Amino acid sequence: MFSVTVRDHMMIAHSFRGAVFGPAQQLHGATFVVDATFRRAELDPDNIVVDIALASQQLHAVLSQLNLRNLDEEPDFAGVNTTTEALARHIADRLVEAIHAGELGEGARQLAGVAVTLHESHVAWASYEREL
Amino acid sequence: MFSVTVRDHMMIAHSFRGAVFGPAQQLHGATFVVDATFRRAELDPDNIVVDIALASQQLHAVLSQLNLRNLDEEPDFAGVNTTTEALARHIADRLVEAIHAGELGEGARQLAGVAVTLHESHVAWASYEREL
Amino acid sequence: MFSVTVRDHMMIAHSFRGAVFGPAQQLHGATFVVDATFRRAELDPDNIVVDIALASQQLHAVLSQLNLRNLDEEPDFAGVNTTTEALARHIADRLVEAIHAGELGEGARQLAGVAVTLHESHVAWASYEREL
Amino acid sequence: MFSVTVRDHMMIAHSFRGAVFGPAQQLHGATFVVDATFRRAELDPDNIVVDIALASQQLHAVLSQLNLRNLDEEPDFAGVNTTTEALARHIADRLVEAIHAGELGEGARQLAGVAVTLHESHVAWASYEREL
Amino acid sequence: MFSVTVRDHMMIAHSFRGAVFGPAQQLHGATFVVDATFRRAELDPDNIVVDIALASQQLHAVLSQLNLRNLDEEPDFAGVNTTTEALARHIADRLVEAIHAGELGEGARQLAGVAVTLHESHVAWASYEREL
Amino acid sequence: MFSVTVRDHMMIAHSFRGAVFGPAQQLHGATFVVDATFRRAELDPDNIVVDIALASQQLHAVLSQLNLRNLDEEPDFAGVNTTTEALARHIADRLVEAIHAGELGEGARQLAGVAVTLHESHVAWASYEREL
Repeated sequence: MFSVTVRDHMMIAHSFRGAVFGPAQQLHGATFVVDATFRRAELDPDNIVVDIALASQQLHAVLSQLNLRNLDEEPDFAGVNTTTEALARHIADRLVEAIHAGELGEGARQLAGVAVTLHESHVAWASYEREL
Repeated sequence: MFSVTVRDHMMIAHSFRGAVFGPAQQLHGATFVVDATFRRAELDPDNIVVDIALASQQLHAVLSQLNLRNLDEEPDFAGVNTTTEALARHIADRLVEAIHAGELGEGARQLAGVAVTLHESHVAWASYEREL
Repeated sequence: MFSVTVRDHMMIAHSFRGAVFGPAQQLHGATFVVDATFRRAELDPDNIVVDIALASQQLHAVLSQLNLRNLDEEPDFAGVNTTTEALARHIADRLVEAIHAGELGEGARQLAGVAVTLHESHVAWASYEREL
Repeated sequence: MFSVTVRDHMMIAHSFRGAVFGPAQQLHGATFVVDATFRRAELDPDNIVVDIALASQQLHAVLSQLNLRNLDEEPDFAGVNTTTEALARHIADRLVEAIHAGELGEGARQLAGVAVTLHESHVAWASYEREL
Repeated sequence: MFSVTVRDHMMIAHSFRGAVFGPAQQLHGATFVVDATFRRAELDPDNIVVDIALASQQLHAVLSQLNLRNLDEEPDFAGVNTTTEALARHIADRLVEAIHAGELGEGARQLAGVAVTLHESHVAWASYEREL
Repeated sequence: MFSVTVRDHMMIAHSFRGAVFGPAQQLHGATFVVDATFRRAELDPDNIVVDIALASQQLHAVLSQLNLRNLDEEPDFAGVNTTTEALARHIADRLVEAIHAGELGEGARQLAGVAVTLHESHVAWASYEREL
C-alpha cells in the first residue's frame, strides 16, 4: 500500500457544549495543522499516488471554507461540537467529494482511502480515516 | 475509524542484558517522548473519541510510575529488558487497565484499541498497538 | 551565556483591527505553542540557570490567564491588537514580573534576560526578547 | 503488533517525465528524510523487534546506493520516474532483501512487514508498506 | 527586540567544487526548508513587525527564482559554490532588496535586520543574518 | 554573521544533588538531542563556515565520551551536577579544544564562536554559547 500526505493549516474560533469540555465551553480558538493522506494499492503509470499539486490545492480549498472563521457561526456546524475529531471527518469527507468530482484528476478515482490528521498543539492531535 | 493522541514524556535510567545490545548493556538512560493513541469506530454524543483531559491525566499517571527512576531496580521489571518496545507495551497495557477501570470515563469503554509510541531520540522510536 | 527554555501552549480566539490583517479581521483563533527562554551569564551553585520546575509552573500560570479565552473581551487587551508579536511581549513581561516577585526562586534574580517565542503554525512564529 | 522505526536521509538530484509534474520535469533535487519501520507480532527473547543497530546500518547502506547522486543517470532507474512514492518502495524492497539475506540478524526473519516513509519537505511525504 | 519568522521551501540540484566536499562534488540535490526572520526594535501602530502576508509572498517569490532548478546552470551562481551558507546569504540579500524596494510595505523600512536559516536535513542547517 | 549547525544525540544516566532538583535527585536518565552551532563572520574560499563532515565527526567523538554511560561514575564529573546547562558547556568546551587542535580543519581557526543546545525532551532544552 502506498500513501502520499500533504500538510496545510487553518486558524479558527469555536466553543463546545457539554460538561466534558470544562473551560473549553468558553469561546476560544485553535490552529489546526492538517495532514491529508491519500492511499492507493498501486501507483499509476506516472509512478504517483495522486497529483500532489492538485492534492495540495484541494486541501487548501477545503480549509479555506473554515480558515479565519468562528465555527460557532457557520451553518454547516449548527448544533454540532466542532471537535478536532469531528473536523478531521468533515475535511476527509470534503476531500472524498472532491475526488469523486474529479478535482484531484481522473487517476485519483483509483484511490483506496483518505486519512486526515489535525494537530491542535504539540501535545495533542486527532485523525479520521475512511475508504473511498 | 477515529483516533485521538496525547503526548507526554518520562526520563529513566536502565541497562540491557544480551550481546545484541552492545554498549547499551551499561547503565545509561533515555528520555521517552510518549504518544498514546485511542481509537474508536464512531464518535460519542459529544463528538469525541475520549475525554482528552482524562486521557492526558491517565497517561501522566502511568508515566509517573516510571519517570525519574532506574528501571533496573523496579520490581515490575525484574529479569526483563526494558526496551523501548517493551515499555510501549507496558504503558499501553496500563492504559487499557485504566480504561476498563472507568478512569477515562464511561464512554471510553467503547474504545476499539490503544497504540503507544515511545520516541527515544530524533532518529528512533517504537510502537505497540492492541485492541481493547 | 547560558539559557534554559521551557515549552507550553494556549488556545485563544481573537480578531484584529486594521486593513493590513485582511480576513484575519474576522473573529478566528490560534493555538500558540509558547517557548520561554531564560538567559544568564553564569550558572548558580547548583549548576542551573533557573529552577526548571518553577519556570514551567510560572509559564503555565501566565498562559492560564489567557488560555481558552476570547482575547477581544479581555480588559487587558482593550483597544490592542493581540498579534503574535504583542502576545510574546505580554508573556515575557509577565514572566519578568514573576522573576522580580521571587516566584522563580531567589537565584532567578541573577537572570540576564528573557525571550518568548509563540509558534502560531508550522510556518510562522514570532519572538520578543528583553533584558531583566 | 510492535514496530521499531529508524531515521536517516539522502540528498539526490532527479527530474520527472510527464505533464503532471509541471516544472518538476526540470532537473532539480531533494533531501529525503527516510523512516524505515519494522513490524512484528511478538518480541524476540531479548524483548526487541529487531537489532536496532543492524537496522540503522542496513538503512544507511541502502541509502548510500542513492545518496549524493543524480538518479536520472542510475541504471536501476532507467525509464522510471523516481517519485517519492517509487523511492519508498525501492528502499523497502532493498530492506526486505537484506532481511531475507540475514543482514538484520536471524531473528529478523520473524518480521511481519516493513514500511518506509520519505519526507520530501515539511509539508509533503510519501510511504510504502509491504509484508515480508 | 521583536522578530517574526515565516517558513517555505525549495528543491534544487547542484554540485560543489573542492576536495573538502568529498562525494558532494557529484551532482546531487537538496530540499531546503527556509526560515526568514525579520527583526525590529519596536512594533508598528498595528502591533506588528511586518505584514506577514507580504513577508510570506516575498519569501516565496525569492525562492521561486531557485526552486526546481539545477543551480549549476544558473548564471547568478556561475563559479560559485552554492553551499547552504551561501544560499542563506543570497536569500537574505534578496529579501533586503525587496524591503528597500517597498515590497514588504512602507513600515518594513523600519526593520532592523533579517536572518535566513536553511534546513538541509533533520541533522544540519545553516544561517546568515545581517542588518538592514 | 554565518552559522552552521549539526545534530547528534546521546543517552545517559545521572542523578542530581540539591533540594531544587526534587525527585530528579534519584538516579534517572535522559536522551539529549545535541545541536552544535559554529559561527563565523565571513565564509572561507570554499564558501563554507566549516567542513560539515569534520564538524559532525567531532561532535560525534565528543558525545561518544559520554554516550551510554552513568555520568555519576565519570571522573570528569565528580562532585558536579551534570545538568543540561552544564553538559552544554562541557560539550562546547570540548569542541573548542578540537577546533584549536586543528581537528575541524585549518579553516576552522577563523570561527568566531560555538553554541551548543541540548534538548532533554519536547518541552525543555538548554544552551551555552561562547566565543573562540
